[in-house]
Amino acid sequence: MGADLPDQERQRQQDGSDVARRGLMLVLSSPSGAGKTTLSRMLLERDPALELSISVTTRKPRPGEVEGRDYHFIDGRTFDAMVARGDLLEWAEVFGSRYGTPRKPVEQALAMGRDVLFDIDWQGTQQLREKGRDDLVSVFVLPPSIPDLEARLRTRAQDADDVIRARMSKAANEMSHWAEYDYVVINRDVWRAFDDVCAILAAERLKRERQTGLSAFVRALQAEL
Amino acid sequence: MGADLPDQERQRQQDGSDVARRGLMLVLSSPSGAGKTTLSRMLLERDPALELSISVTTRKPRPGEVEGRDYHFIDGRTFDAMVARGDLLEWAEVFGSRYGTPRKPVEQALAMGRDVLFDIDWQGTQQLREKGRDDLVSVFVLPPSIPDLEARLRTRAQDADDVIRARMSKAANEMSHWAEYDYVVINRDVWRAFDDVCAILAAERLKRERQTGLSAFVRALQAEL
Repeated sequence: MGADLPDQERQRQQDGSDVARRGLMLVLSSPSGAGKTTLSRMLLERDPALELSISVTTRKPRPGEVEGRDYHFIDGRTFDAMVARGDLLEWAEVFGSRYGTPRKPVEQALAMGRDVLFDIDWQGTQQLREKGRDDLVSVFVLPPSIPDLEARLRTRAQDADDVIRARMSKAANEMSHWAEYDYVVINRDVWRAFDDVCAILAAERLKRERQTGLSAFVRALQAEL
Repeated sequence: MGADLPDQERQRQQDGSDVARRGLMLVLSSPSGAGKTTLSRMLLERDPALELSISVTTRKPRPGEVEGRDYHFIDGRTFDAMVARGDLLEWAEVFGSRYGTPRKPVEQALAMGRDVLFDIDWQGTQQLREKGRDDLVSVFVLPPSIPDLEARLRTRAQDADDVIRARMSKAANEMSHWAEYDYVVINRDVWRAFDDVCAILAAERLKRERQTGLSAFVRALQAEL
């Protein structure tokens, strides 16, 4: 307990509340084209207590990508060592490159009462669920309709029809995992969906078991009576 | 399933969404003077999908109280019969009068996707928790400080000091039950606390298991692909 105090103190100063809390892990997943990435960006812009988890990857940086902002770029041997030490909360291989979520920054953030946002798919979420347990809050974003999904996939990239078709078919598969999530948001309107996700985040922060300073707070109240 | 369809249809029309949902039971509890009654009134005024549970009671109506709005006033024999038939979700005796929550209107509301608000204490909540299970969302409202609590108790009623002291002592006892609730809201500012409770209600409505129409919704999406 004593060792946590400086962190809790800092957290109290940050959000102006009197009660220390443990952070949470917010996962947003969706089939591509359902608006997850837009919602993630909006959340991060609006909420200073929320930070994005930065993945490690073994692939080379693409033009414009910045180390430490987009990814931590590491070699395969370092990646292997992280897996072996249990330093990754989840990892996957995609087209021959590996991607993973480092455990340590997440645990530090949670202990300080900061929340961490994960923009990952259902496979990553399944691994995170095992390790994150009560810290995990998972939200699945669905498109309102298939024409809407297709329109968004077409606007986003001027891809050939067969690429769009492949994405649509992948979306159908991804969509089947909605039932593994705590919350489901239908993205009819991006502002309404944003309000929904903000409400989920606000409510989850008010969960009794996350407000780790409540015992002390109530004890102080009762001592005055 | 078939028998539920008309209700679900009606609910869909009410809130303009495409997905049928099951209602929830929202319990607000607090020591008296912490603002629970004000918050309940604000919620009911703002949210047409939320209705207040009307208790039955064996006591006589006070001046200004309206049958069916404040309480359903019934005699002791009728109350006994309701208890015997299991028609009450919770009940208690206070100063020789009995008060209880009728089960039927609550179950009808939940099945139609409407939410029910309960302004009850920790003893009623304990009984409701047993019967309401996954439908129950419980929120405990705490005062920010003891001087604040005392000020509110003094403003509300011009009572003698010993009455105030008795209330304060009761408040200390009530407060000790915060740890039985799902959420805890500290009422530093009534508008901020109201936002907190609104966020909890909005989030709980987005819980996957409450959105009973989601399977059908996703199935329809996938059929289009």
